[in-house]
Amino acid sequence: MIRHVVMFTWKAEATEEQRAAVPAELAKLPAAIPEIRRYEFGPGRNPGNKDFVLVADFDDDESFVTYRDHPAHQAFIAACVTPIAADLARVQYEVAS
Amino acid sequence: MIRHVVMFTWKAEATEEQRAAVPAELAKLPAAIPEIRRYEFGPGRNPGNKDFVLVADFDDDESFVTYRDHPAHQAFIAACVTPIAADLARVQYEVAS
Repeated sequence: MIRHVVMFTWKAEATEEQRAAVPAELAKLPAAIPEIRRYEFGPGRNPGNKDFVLVADFDDDESFVTYRDHPAHQAFIAACVTPIAADLARVQYEVAS
Repeated sequence: MIRHVVMFTWKAEATEEQRAAVPAELAKLPAAIPEIRRYEFGPGRNPGNKDFVLVADFDDDESFVTYRDHPAHQAFIAACVTPIAADLARVQYEVAS
C-alpha cells in the first residue's frame, strides 16, 4: 500500500467557516475517487503543532497519482485549501497492506 | 484513538548509516512501549516531500503522553533524530477506533 500524509497550517485569518469546510468537503472525496482505500483526517489537538492532517492509503503509486490529479481532489484544493493554507507538509511512503 | 503523525526532513549531511538507524531503532520501540497500538513508519518516496514519516496510534491522550515521555522514546530521539533532523512537522488528531 502507498500512504499519503499531508499536514496543514492555516493562515491566522482563516475563518471558522473556512476551517470547517475542509473536513466537510474531504468527506465527499471517497465517494468520488474509488482509488481511496483509507481516508482519515481531522484537526490537530495540540497548539504549536500542525492544524490539520490527512492520512490516505492507496493500492499503489498509480492509484495515488490518479487521486492526486483527480478533478474532485483538485477542485477541493482550489476551493478549500489554497485560500487558507499557510504551510503544507507532505510525504508518501510504503506501508504493509 | 489518538493518532500521532510526525514527518522529518533530514540534514543534507546526514549519512546513509544515520538515516538507516532511524527505522532500525524505531522498530524496537513497540516492544518497549506497550501503549503503542499502531506504528507505521518509513522513508518518503517522492523527492521534494518529507524524508521520513511515522504514523502511530494510541488508545487516548494519556497513552500518547506516556509514549512521548517514555525513556526509550526520548533516547531514540536524542540518539537518532536530533543529530540529523533539519525540520520536523507534528500533529496529533482523533481517529475512529
